[in-house]
Amino acid sequence: MFVLGIDPGLSRCGYGVVETDGRRPIAHALGVLRTPPSAPTPKRLAGLQYEIRSLIQEFSPSVVAIERVFFQVNANTAIGVAQAAGLAMAEGAAAGAEVVEYTPNQVKEAVAGWGAAPKDQMIRMVQSLLGLEKPPKPADAADAIAVALCHLAHAPSRAAAKAAGVAL
Amino acid sequence: MFVLGIDPGLSRCGYGVVETDGRRPIAHALGVLRTPPSAPTPKRLAGLQYEIRSLIQEFSPSVVAIERVFFQVNANTAIGVAQAAGLAMAEGAAAGAEVVEYTPNQVKEAVAGWGAAPKDQMIRMVQSLLGLEKPPKPADAADAIAVALCHLAHAPSRAAAKAAGVAL
Repeated sequence: MFVLGIDPGLSRCGYGVVETDGRRPIAHALGVLRTPPSAPTPKRLAGLQYEIRSLIQEFSPSVVAIERVFFQVNANTAIGVAQAAGLAMAEGAAAGAEVVEYTPNQVKEAVAGWGAAPKDQMIRMVQSLLGLEKPPKPADAADAIAVALCHLAHAPSRAAAKAAGVAL
Repeated sequence: MFVLGIDPGLSRCGYGVVETDGRRPIAHALGVLRTPPSAPTPKRLAGLQYEIRSLIQEFSPSVVAIERVFFQVNANTAIGVAQAAGLAMAEGAAAGAEVVEYTPNQVKEAVAGWGAAPKDQMIRMVQSLLGLEKPPKPADAADAIAVALCHLAHAPSRAAAKAAGVAL
């Protein structure tokens, strides 16, 4: 099963593709999609949409896991994050993938064991879980990989709940 | 020139296609794209994206004019509106159209002559400007047509500013 993790953003949108066969997860791709702040917003969104669609076409993930948007102090940043997340959701659903959102706390709990884990601990945990020689970089890509790993941690209980007919 | 006006929303997204040859504008299509609130957000966004893309393919507008998103009291509604607007921007830019945003006040000023015009006056003005026998319905569709008419009102000064090298 391939999972595409997304840490949404308009200037920087982290992505990470993780595969699991039930044992250790493997990272197949990670990086950051960037759009230039000097460009008009519609062109930035169109560019981001194209890049996300290309990733989905390349890896055919069965799940797209997205960090959930919260309203932030900076309203303009929040709108950009919401729009980037919206594009990822639309592209994922249009491609037939399951689309799941996780809160930042859920991601931290699943990957580091507690919801207030600091960023450097998260990066070390991602490195350890994937068996990487070096810490994953840049930070947005590590965040996106963490969202994908969070889904893998939740997947068994989600599957059990689905089988039992319980809505999540 | 065809202008696609969009009044963005996730549950109800108004659209209106207006053409002008420099004299009276003509409405070619107007309506509301709906997505069921009971469906998962990613599927709703994918459905809305598909419908907006279909409208753009059908009419090939040279301009997509969108009512600008503001933060509202209800944060969840604001996120849906921002995401719907983001999809419309991305689809418009990807199709090569010029994408322009107008504030609600700009739309009211351009169509009714003052920024605090009430909704019923806006609907009557849209009816009058387009020479329609009946008031346009539903309200979201009339709003979207008003955004397109707002662009037509601004287009001459935008073109003049562009020719003079002034950024808008």
